[in-house]
Amino acid sequence: MAGPTDHDAGRDAVLDGYRSSIDNIDAALIHMLAERFKVTRKVGAHKAAAGMPPADPAREAAQVQRMRELAVSAGLDPVFSEKFLRFVIDEVIRHHESAGNSAGNPASNDG
Amino acid sequence: MAGPTDHDAGRDAVLDGYRSSIDNIDAALIHMLAERFKVTRKVGAHKAAAGMPPADPAREAAQVQRMRELAVSAGLDPVFSEKFLRFVIDEVIRHHESAGNSAGNPASNDG
Repeated sequence: MAGPTDHDAGRDAVLDGYRSSIDNIDAALIHMLAERFKVTRKVGAHKAAAGMPPADPAREAAQVQRMRELAVSAGLDPVFSEKFLRFVIDEVIRHHESAGNSAGNPASNDG
Repeated sequence: MAGPTDHDAGRDAVLDGYRSSIDNIDAALIHMLAERFKVTRKVGAHKAAAGMPPADPAREAAQVQRMRELAVSAGLDPVFSEKFLRFVIDEVIRHHESAGNSAGNPASNDG
């Protein structure tokens, strides 16, 4: 097993440990995102079936505010948390546009 | 308590349930991201202290491939998973640029 200074062999036990943690966290993130999109697809179908408008600006504003507060308490840049929410919602919109194109149902962006 | 068709009162128990799940998942995502950035900051400090180069294209390529495979197994668009990894790594680079500007240590983008 390589020690932390054994760079020439391309191994670094400390770095390997960090990378293992990053890989575990990334797997958790991917699975949480997959679950999130399962729920937003249900939101879209539910709103379409109920004849509710796709967008809900008050909900989105509340989400942004909540994410920023969570970010601060977790030691994360609140600006980043808002960018992250926007990034995810953009993907939700993309899903709903695809669903709308195939089913003729414009659906919710409510993420 | 409002029923699922009680839209006029602005309440929808089904929608509220979905939103509660989304909020729980978002809290998990924010906390996992905060933990991830804690680790990438350690990677940056470790690489700088060890005189290792900040970038590791082979590592990044392996991460992209792994994220795509995880995404497929989780029912997530692999293209989205790659965009997500890029989004997160861009933030890692931003952290390291800030750290480099204040400490004079260019650090790792290794995310």
